Amino acid sequence: MAKPYFKPVPGAPAPLRITVQRTVRFEEVDPLGVAWHGRYASYLEDARVALGDTYGFGYLDLRDNGIITPIKQLHIDYLKPLRYAEPFTIEALLHWTEAARINIEYILRNQRAEVTTTAYSVQMLVDTEGELIIVQPEFCRGFFTRWKEGKLDNA
Amino acid sequence: MAKPYFKPVPGAPAPLRITVQRTVRFEEVDPLGVAWHGRYASYLEDARVALGDTYGFGYLDLRDNGIITPIKQLHIDYLKPLRYAEPFTIEALLHWTEAARINIEYILRNQRAEVTTTAYSVQMLVDTEGELIIVQPEFCRGFFTRWKEGKLDNA
Amino acid sequence: MAKPYFKPVPGAPAPLRITVQRTVRFEEVDPLGVAWHGRYASYLEDARVALGDTYGFGYLDLRDNGIITPIKQLHIDYLKPLRYAEPFTIEALLHWTEAARINIEYILRNQRAEVTTTAYSVQMLVDTEGELIIVQPEFCRGFFTRWKEGKLDNA
Amino acid sequence: MAKPYFKPVPGAPAPLRITVQRTVRFEEVDPLGVAWHGRYASYLEDARVALGDTYGFGYLDLRDNGIITPIKQLHIDYLKPLRYAEPFTIEALLHWTEAARINIEYILRNQRAEVTTTAYSVQMLVDTEGELIIVQPEFCRGFFTRWKEGKLDNA
Repeated sequence: MAKPYFKPVPGAPAPLRITVQRTVRFEEVDPLGVAWHGRYASYLEDARVALGDTYGFGYLDLRDNGIITPIKQLHIDYLKPLRYAEPFTIEALLHWTEAARINIEYILRNQRAEVTTTAYSVQMLVDTEGELIIVQPEFCRGFFTRWKEGKLDNA
Repeated sequence: MAKPYFKPVPGAPAPLRITVQRTVRFEEVDPLGVAWHGRYASYLEDARVALGDTYGFGYLDLRDNGIITPIKQLHIDYLKPLRYAEPFTIEALLHWTEAARINIEYILRNQRAEVTTTAYSVQMLVDTEGELIIVQPEFCRGFFTRWKEGKLDNA
Repeated sequence: MAKPYFKPVPGAPAPLRITVQRTVRFEEVDPLGVAWHGRYASYLEDARVALGDTYGFGYLDLRDNGIITPIKQLHIDYLKPLRYAEPFTIEALLHWTEAARINIEYILRNQRAEVTTTAYSVQMLVDTEGELIIVQPEFCRGFFTRWKEGKLDNA
Repeated sequence: MAKPYFKPVPGAPAPLRITVQRTVRFEEVDPLGVAWHGRYASYLEDARVALGDTYGFGYLDLRDNGIITPIKQLHIDYLKPLRYAEPFTIEALLHWTEAARINIEYILRNQRAEVTTTAYSVQMLVDTEGELIIVQPEFCRGFFTRWKEGKLDNA
């Protein structure tokens, strides 16, 4: 990955990060003996949910503020396979953006700390009527302000 | 299956039946080369949904009448495995009952018409508040009357 | 559950038990807001895998001894629903049997320790050619002997 | 999608195409009432499998020639949601490439023929030892020759 998934924003605070652990389940393994590529959406969601819950912008936090965040774009680069019962970690990094969207990068690593997979997702903000939110809502602005002021770092 | 899944009701009309087709997907196959046992809930649901849609008691029909039908019991007997790309049929049979529940039997057959799996499910009727419906609601009574009068046979 | 899932065997040692934890994922929840009934095969497998790994009869242990243990029967009783982000536990109990099979009972409990689901599975023993194993193989006999002598209790 | 997913190759034959149909299953719908984004890998695979089977480079065709084609990259753009019981089509287009890889574009359309989703996948060729195949194997060259000569068009 020579080129970063998201264009760096000058003056942006460092990404918010979290890492979760998971083990490849039997049901996730295909006839070739590796985790089926379609399972990774679930792997990424585990880390994305943990990221949101940890920093206060989880699915329920947002929903209670009238905001839904559907996935608009998902991109996965498969570098090395994962096998049955193999433990691995999923790191999610929330990247700063001025736009009304949520940009997350993901890095999966096996037990030898080798990067097996990289990925990114882009989420839009939608209100409860399904209308696209173009201006960052107050809930998000408060969150972004605390982030920029470094108040979310030790979450 | 010497013993029937559901106790026969004297004087009951014949079960309502439907058969759907499906093919084992790559993603459904486990490292042993057969459809993972946990996928069968999806196979059964395909036939159950077709049964409901065909005879007018589908998920949306019932929901529009304020009735939800959660699965209370699921039982599956695995007799023979199914393999990648193998076509098979799923027959669903709605059995008559005087109780406020939905009793369905399932028979899966491979291309050689061998029975590979038998199963049954029991659903309760619940209103939109989540309260158990004990007396058969009007919508269901109408349906059961038409069934007993043989008016659903050619659905 | 007035009637036990498995007929008690006189003189049998107590079941081997293990409990694992899991949280309902977003992807597991259906439009009605509860974990879809078909996800429970995965919940049960988590506990069954942990049971096998803990007591030394896991998928890989058995496979290395030429034994495969396909599911022959799965039965689930849904008592209460599980909701998004709800943590719950899955207890698996291996019941003693003289037959060449694996009988496991499952109990799911929510955070208030209420039983939400009970279930059981029956597995047959098959060799690597797919032939049914009728007599308990040596690997299993050793395991059963250690169990009866109480040598597996603190696993 | 102003920019094409794959850079056009001058002189390349037209893509090979196929369209399959599917309906959104209850189990595929999330609590927001739309098909969960992670299910789309399955939707895409349905069309990819049909494409391979139709034109003679399916999973089993390739495997019998010692070639495995793991997914290296998956990219999905979600434009409009799909809802429960909604029928939709998945078109897969195999794009010409001189490299030893398989480049497929996908277009999902709802009943009103609106494009709901676009996507692409890139597959590498690997031999049965898991070694990357760099030079197009004979099986593939024959396939590509027939394609260029227009002999696959009416498949």
